[in-house]
Amino acid sequence: MGARQLHFNLFLHDTGHHEASWRLPSSDPHANLSLEAHQHLARVAEDAKFDSLFLADSPAMFGEPGRRPAGRIEPTVLLAALAVSTQRIGLIATASTSYNEPFNLARRLASVDHLSGGRAGWNIVTTAGDAAARNFGLEGQPLHKTRYERADEFLDVATKLWDSWADDAVVADKEAGVHTLRDRVRPISHSGAYFSVEGPLNLARPPQGHPLLVQAGSSEDGKEFAARWAEAIFTAQPTLAESQAFYADIKRRVLAAGRNPDHVLVLPGIVPVLGETEAEARELEEELDRLIAPEYAIVQLAQLLRVDPDRLDLDAELPDDLPSEEAIEGAKSRRTLVVDWARRDRLTVRELIGKLGGGRGHRTFTGTPVQVADTIQHYFENGAADGFNIMPAVLPSGIEAFTSSVVPILQERGLFRTEYAGTTLRDHYGLPRPANRLDPAAEEAAS
Amino acid sequence: MGARQLHFNLFLHDTGHHEASWRLPSSDPHANLSLEAHQHLARVAEDAKFDSLFLADSPAMFGEPGRRPAGRIEPTVLLAALAVSTQRIGLIATASTSYNEPFNLARRLASVDHLSGGRAGWNIVTTAGDAAARNFGLEGQPLHKTRYERADEFLDVATKLWDSWADDAVVADKEAGVHTLRDRVRPISHSGAYFSVEGPLNLARPPQGHPLLVQAGSSEDGKEFAARWAEAIFTAQPTLAESQAFYADIKRRVLAAGRNPDHVLVLPGIVPVLGETEAEARELEEELDRLIAPEYAIVQLAQLLRVDPDRLDLDAELPDDLPSEEAIEGAKSRRTLVVDWARRDRLTVRELIGKLGGGRGHRTFTGTPVQVADTIQHYFENGAADGFNIMPAVLPSGIEAFTSSVVPILQERGLFRTEYAGTTLRDHYGLPRPANRLDPAAEEAAS
Ligand SMILES: Cc1cc2nc3c(=O)[nH]c(=O)nc-3n(C[C@H](O)[C@H](O)[C@H](O)COP(=O)(O)O)c2cc1C
Ligand SMILES: Cc1cc2nc3c(=O)[nH]c(=O)nc-3n(C[C@H](O)[C@H](O)[C@H](O)COP(=O)(O)O)c2cc1C
Repeated sequence: MGARQLHFNLFLHDTGHHEASWRLPSSDPHANLSLEAHQHLARVAEDAKFDSLFLADSPAMFGEPGRRPAGRIEPTVLLAALAVSTQRIGLIATASTSYNEPFNLARRLASVDHLSGGRAGWNIVTTAGDAAARNFGLEGQPLHKTRYERADEFLDVATKLWDSWADDAVVADKEAGVHTLRDRVRPISHSGAYFSVEGPLNLARPPQGHPLLVQAGSSEDGKEFAARWAEAIFTAQPTLAESQAFYADIKRRVLAAGRNPDHVLVLPGIVPVLGETEAEARELEEELDRLIAPEYAIVQLAQLLRVDPDRLDLDAELPDDLPSEEAIEGAKSRRTLVVDWARRDRLTVRELIGKLGGGRGHRTFTGTPVQVADTIQHYFENGAADGFNIMPAVLPSGIEAFTSSVVPILQERGLFRTEYAGTTLRDHYGLPRPANRLDPAAEEAAS
Repeated sequence: MGARQLHFNLFLHDTGHHEASWRLPSSDPHANLSLEAHQHLARVAEDAKFDSLFLADSPAMFGEPGRRPAGRIEPTVLLAALAVSTQRIGLIATASTSYNEPFNLARRLASVDHLSGGRAGWNIVTTAGDAAARNFGLEGQPLHKTRYERADEFLDVATKLWDSWADDAVVADKEAGVHTLRDRVRPISHSGAYFSVEGPLNLARPPQGHPLLVQAGSSEDGKEFAARWAEAIFTAQPTLAESQAFYADIKRRVLAAGRNPDHVLVLPGIVPVLGETEAEARELEEELDRLIAPEYAIVQLAQLLRVDPDRLDLDAELPDDLPSEEAIEGAKSRRTLVVDWARRDRLTVRELIGKLGGGRGHRTFTGTPVQVADTIQHYFENGAADGFNIMPAVLPSGIEAFTSSVVPILQERGLFRTEYAGTTLRDHYGLPRPANRLDPAAEEAAS
């Protein structure tokens, strides 16, 4: 093993995480629907030995369609295609526990794990917003607390379904005419507050046992959920101090939940903006901010804060009397992050929109490759991160720049792999294959 | 165009449609979960210029896990992977209207259509059986009639979601900062007996307008549903006369529903069993039947007929007092097909199991390549079929034999293409791209 190693996840996002990236002359504005564009990004990340790539998602229109590419290929489908185009990199799909049935989603995630030889991960989200709810027969979103309760039971059902086939169930004995041992495939007979699911799953246990479980909610309920279920955590932390506090908080909660803190990796999002000189990097950042269309951005900000857009003045600070985190049922922790940031740095609405358009609350690392590598190492060695969720402002150029200039520095310093050691996503993250929950005999044998 | 052309669909099924195919020495008993096995089959079919390939599915265990490979990769996921491995062939996924939400399924099918450049199809099924129901919070399956009512509304919602983006919605105007015309992306505001869906879909209109709509239910309700929605129909017909009757019946119903009968293709399933001589072909058939394990098969037959397995005697005919089609809520038309066949040919239960293990009610065409080509041509030219659903008893050998020996004969006779003329699945089947249901202006311009 050697020294503790960094982990990198590429957060795919069409032409980049910056709001206006699609408007650059070099950007393909149809990249959001392009297989080739995604294949290229996946290969760049895999060539650099990234642990994984990741697709965000929501079962509703994401923001205003006018302002930036709004349509997205559904992640399990897109990652199945990328499984064919790659050999080693992990493939993490976002899917909602509020707007899926556990049988169907557990099946699809297991399918991607089988197809990819054990490279599937699931970013578990509860999906904020009324727009999604109204696509599923509801008038508005269920309460935040209700969504997390359902998420808990969803995970209970999904993990039992994955475990409904014992690892040794398939014998494929041609002579005897027995393909699968019938008593090693078991119903789960789950009956709970949200779901009744008989099982078994109609698919053998996934190569990884369970696909890797990833989580990205940072509210109180979100962090408790993560402590119980997550193996990797995406998070938006604007400063080093906040990253450190979040990191310590999560590891403590994991321990309190009776799990091993080393088996839950914290991956803050960073937006690397690179230049040969620091000045060049800053110029790139400003060029992008000038392309943001504030009339669209203000509507989205108002939605997040639950105020009337007319109450936001581009050249003033946020109003004092905003609804509190407790009062909103949407993305609680994101609302608080944004408000705290604006207040602390006394940002005008226009400045705030610039920050959000770039990294949407994630930390921007602007500078030369050595400067960015230094910051990464500093976070990694000072209790702020186990690795990073890399969110380039512009794609593919931003990931090409990061992998060709920053990654080699970190490899040279012995902080990041130069070859994949294993074949599965769990191998890359150094996480164990879970024991079978329905199979105490196998658990004993394994321990 | 020239003369009317045959259409071929390859019905994928692990190591073959014969119950016992996995037990042959040459079979890979893990083919059901193998990407490579599916890629090979897809390429063989594409090299032969097949219109499409197809995956069956159910959200529950399919039959007894002991007896044959029971696990299946979920079809939209598997076909997304095959989209990358092929260029032209159509990709038809089975998905249930009873156990999906229209928003999620419409999204995934549209995703496959985008990824594949317009090659997606949907085999719409209502899913018979209590096992599936019990994976979704129900005690048993909803009534047959209820399932078809829900299917009708499901199609109404799905087609509106696909049409929620006008074809000209995306303008990608970098200069103006307008990616999509906001008034060309419209909510559907559907509110019905089974679904309330606000929309719009979070994905541009699929390349084909709608993925190709395929259907396979043959009960009275099933045929009426097909007449309203289907563009291609899979069906199991054991004789020429029954195929002709079904064909005429469907075309009549389509006309009565106000649609063009040429825009609904009837594709009976056939199991080609080929030999250099007729005797060799018959030998292959018998070898396979000897491998069937009757103790498993009898349980499945009893389930279909809704009788106690103890009442079925392997060496006697079926009991006289079976429940009628009206009395069962599962796969009505399949039950009737099986009973009629057994009664007409006075089959013992053992003989019936042999027939079902081979083609599961579909017609077996056994003989030399010329004999099989002759039968295909005879069906095609005598009002029994617009093409065929090819269901080889053994895979991949059965499709390799069919494409290398039967297809060239039909190509020589001018009945089947030697090159793809178009790029989409609709192009291959000669079916029009549907007008946008929410966009009367565009419809007028197109007509
Ligand atoms: C890096 C990152 C990625 C996220 N991706 C998604 C996503 O794809 N879909 C989604 O609904 N929410 C996503 N979220 C939002 C979180 O799931 C969560 O809803 C949000 O952080 C608010 O936290 P809470 O749900 O605990 O209140 C993401 C958050 C972060 C930090
Ligand atoms: C070629 C063919 C393929 C079929 N594939 C499926 C399938 O994948 N999943 C499924 O639930 N039913 C499948 N069926 C069954 C039909 O959808 C339908 O349930 C059955 O024919 C009974 O008809 P009914 O539903 O109209 O009573 C298939 C039928 C045929 C003929």
